[in-house]
Amino acid sequence: MPVSAGETINGLKGAGLDITLIDRRNHHLFQPLLYQVATTSLATSEIAWPVRQLLRRRKDVTTLLATVTGVDKVGRRVLLSDGESVPYDTLVIATGARHAYFGHDEWEPFAPGLKTLEDATTIRRRILLAFERAERETDAAKRQTFLTFVVIGGGPTGVELAGTIADLARDTLTGEFRRIDPGEARVVLVEAGPRVLGNFRETMSDYAGGALERLGVEVRLGFPVTAVDSEGVTIDGKRLPARTVIWAAGVAASPAAEWLGAPADRAGRIIVEPDLTVTGNPEIFAIGDTAHVERPEGGLVPGVAPSAKQQGRYVAKTIRARLRGRPDHGPFRYRAEGDLATIGKRAAVVDFGWISFTGWLAWWLWGFAHIYFLIGLRYRLAVALSWLWIYATGQRSARLITQGDSDEGKEPVTRKSRAKAGA
Amino acid sequence: MPVSAGETINGLKGAGLDITLIDRRNHHLFQPLLYQVATTSLATSEIAWPVRQLLRRRKDVTTLLATVTGVDKVGRRVLLSDGESVPYDTLVIATGARHAYFGHDEWEPFAPGLKTLEDATTIRRRILLAFERAERETDAAKRQTFLTFVVIGGGPTGVELAGTIADLARDTLTGEFRRIDPGEARVVLVEAGPRVLGNFRETMSDYAGGALERLGVEVRLGFPVTAVDSEGVTIDGKRLPARTVIWAAGVAASPAAEWLGAPADRAGRIIVEPDLTVTGNPEIFAIGDTAHVERPEGGLVPGVAPSAKQQGRYVAKTIRARLRGRPDHGPFRYRAEGDLATIGKRAAVVDFGWISFTGWLAWWLWGFAHIYFLIGLRYRLAVALSWLWIYATGQRSARLITQGDSDEGKEPVTRKSRAKAGA
Repeated sequence: MPVSAGETINGLKGAGLDITLIDRRNHHLFQPLLYQVATTSLATSEIAWPVRQLLRRRKDVTTLLATVTGVDKVGRRVLLSDGESVPYDTLVIATGARHAYFGHDEWEPFAPGLKTLEDATTIRRRILLAFERAERETDAAKRQTFLTFVVIGGGPTGVELAGTIADLARDTLTGEFRRIDPGEARVVLVEAGPRVLGNFRETMSDYAGGALERLGVEVRLGFPVTAVDSEGVTIDGKRLPARTVIWAAGVAASPAAEWLGAPADRAGRIIVEPDLTVTGNPEIFAIGDTAHVERPEGGLVPGVAPSAKQQGRYVAKTIRARLRGRPDHGPFRYRAEGDLATIGKRAAVVDFGWISFTGWLAWWLWGFAHIYFLIGLRYRLAVALSWLWIYATGQRSARLITQGDSDEGKEPVTRKSRAKAGA
Repeated sequence: MPVSAGETINGLKGAGLDITLIDRRNHHLFQPLLYQVATTSLATSEIAWPVRQLLRRRKDVTTLLATVTGVDKVGRRVLLSDGESVPYDTLVIATGARHAYFGHDEWEPFAPGLKTLEDATTIRRRILLAFERAERETDAAKRQTFLTFVVIGGGPTGVELAGTIADLARDTLTGEFRRIDPGEARVVLVEAGPRVLGNFRETMSDYAGGALERLGVEVRLGFPVTAVDSEGVTIDGKRLPARTVIWAAGVAASPAAEWLGAPADRAGRIIVEPDLTVTGNPEIFAIGDTAHVERPEGGLVPGVAPSAKQQGRYVAKTIRARLRGRPDHGPFRYRAEGDLATIGKRAAVVDFGWISFTGWLAWWLWGFAHIYFLIGLRYRLAVALSWLWIYATGQRSARLITQGDSDEGKEPVTRKSRAKAGA
C-alpha cells in the first residue's frame, strides 16, 4: 500500500463505502528509510508493516494480494493476473514507480536500483560481499575494484546511500578484517548535474557536498555516466573500475498509463487533469509517482512523499464531495512541506522554505521527524533502538548476506530473474 | 559460525594460535529461535549476528566467507569452491546438518525444512500466502486446503512450529480478513512415534500434547507420513489435503564424511573417536551435528545445542593440552543441561532432570533463558521488545512476504533452485 493510497483510505473512513485495496505486496513500505536497509542500519521488518494489520479495524476495506494486469474502462473492472477481475465505480491508481535507466536497461544487472525490500537486500548483499571478496583477493588492483563503490545519482537517495556506505566502511567495519582495511574503501557519488541535491537550495547542496567529502566520499559532478558493466563505469570518457555500482538516478512510472490508454509523459506517468482524474474518465484517479501533475502556477508537482500524501487526501475529499453531490471543489494544490536528507550519521540538511538547518541539529531533527512518521509505537521503539545503537557504538545489526549464494560470482540479476526471485 | 565452532574459538583465546574460520555464511544463526522467524514473531536480523563483529577483537582469527568442497588430508589443506585452498595443522569440522527426507527427496519442494534463514523466510512466505490465497478462493473445499497446515515431526521444532502457527491464526490474524476467519485454520502435527517430544520424559510429552490441543492443534501420533505432494499428505493410508506442509522430522549431516573418506552413520555423520577426532587422523576433529559421538556409558550424544557447545569447548581444551605436550585428557563426556520447548505463547515444558516445570512459569523461564543466550545487549533488547509486544498485543511485526512473487503458484522450490536463490 503506497502512502498516497493509504491517505485516500484514511480519508474515506466512515464514508460508508465498499473499498477494495489490491496490492502486489502484503506490506506497506516506509520508502524514505529504505536506503538504511540497503546499508545494514535497519532490518527489513522495521520499515515494512503488514497492510492487513494497519487496516484491521476498517471493516469497509477488503484487501486482496494480487497483481493487476489491466483495466477494463468500459466494463469498469480491474483485471488480475490470475484471470479474475474486480468491479469498481471509482478507481484510484497509486501504483508508484520503479527505477529507469534512460534507455540503458542493459545496465540494470550491474547497477541495481532501490525501490523495494528485495532491491534493498540485493544492494546490502552486494555491498557486504564486496568487502568479503576484497578480503580474499590477493591481487592489489583487483582488490581495489572490490573496495570501490559507485553511487549514480546525487538526489537524496544517492547522497544518503553514499554517506552511509562511507560510514559503514570507516566506522562499522573497522578492525573486522585481517587482510584489508575497510576504511580504505573508495565511495564515489556521480551526478550529471552541477550539484548534489539539485532540488534543494544551493547553500544546502554546497553543505551536503562538503559533508560528503568530509566523510571521504568523492563527489563527481557535471558528467553523466556513459557506460556501466560488470567491471565498472565510464564517466566523461574515463573508466572507473568498480565491482559495486548502485543506481539512484531515475524513475519510471508503473505501466498504469498503458492499462488505461491514457496520455503519459516520457517517464511513463499518466498526465492527469487538475483534479487528478484521468482525461475522459472522471471516475478514475491517478496519484503519487505514477501521475504527472502540473501545478496551476506552472511546473510539476515533485515526486516526494508529502506530495503523494496530499494527493491521496485530496482524492478522498473529492470522492466525499461527489457523494454529497458537490463534485467541484477546485484543482489539487501542492504545498511544499520541506526537504530533508542525511549525510552519514552526524550531518543532515533540512529545508522548510522559511527556515533551513544543516549539521547535527538537522540530523536530530531528521531522526525525530522520521520516527514520528513511522506507524505505531512498536516500530518507533525498534527503529529508535537501532539508531541509538549505531550512534553510540557504530555497530549495525542488519548485516546479513541472504538470498544469494556466497559464491555467486558476477551473474547479473536480470529484470526477469529478479521479477521471479523476488518481486 | 555454528555454536560448536564458536566455543572452540572462544576456548582458544590467548593460546597464540593462527586460526582461520571458513564459513559459507557471514552470520552466526541462533538456531533455537529460527522457528520464530518462520512464524513471523522475530525478524531475521534479531537472531543472526555478523560473525566478523563477534570476532572483531580476536586478531588471531581470520574469517573467510567461502564454501568448502573437500579436504586434502595428506597435504593438509581445506579445498574451496573457487579453486583456492587453506593449509592447516589442526582441522575442526563443524559443518552441521540439513533436513533429510528418509529417501524421499522428492518431498522437499512441498515440505520445506527449517535449518537456515532462507528456509525460515520461505516457510514464513508460504504460511502468509496460504491465508492470502484462502481469502481469494471462492470454492469452499479448496479454501480449506489453503487453511490446513501440516507439520511433520513432533520434536521440539515441530511442536514449536505447530503451536506458533495456531497462535498466529487465532490470535494475530483475527479480524484482518473479510471473507475467511483465520481462526478456522486447521493445524495438524504428525508424529510417527507414540508421543510428541519423544526425547523428553513422558509426563512432559503428555502435557505438551494437551497444551497443543488446547491451542487447537490436531496431534496425530503413531503413523508415519507415506506421501507428500502439492495437494497434501497421506498418513496411515488416509489423505489429508493441505497446501502448506512443513518438514521437522529428520536431519542429515553435511558431506564432511565424504570429504574425509571417514566412516559415517546412516545420517551421514562422521563416527568419531571418544576424543572427537576422526579415526586415523588425530589432527582432525568433527563436532556438533556433523559428528556421531558415542557416550562412554553407551548411547549417542544427542544433537542439541548444549552438546555442540560442550564438544566445542572440549576440542579447545584438547588443543591447549597438546600445546602443553599433555595430549591425553580423557574422552568427551556429555553432560545433559536440560530440555526446553514452548507451546504457543503461554505454555512451555522445561526439564532439567532433577526438576521439571510446565505451564506459564516454564514459558517465562524459557523466555529468560533464551534472552540470556542471545549475544549482546542490543539483540537482547530487540528480542525482548518483540516478545513483550506479541505477549501484550498478539501483533507480530515480521509478517513479510518476500523473496517470491505473490503470484507464484505452486512451483516447487527444488533443492537446486533454492541453492541458487538463497543458499
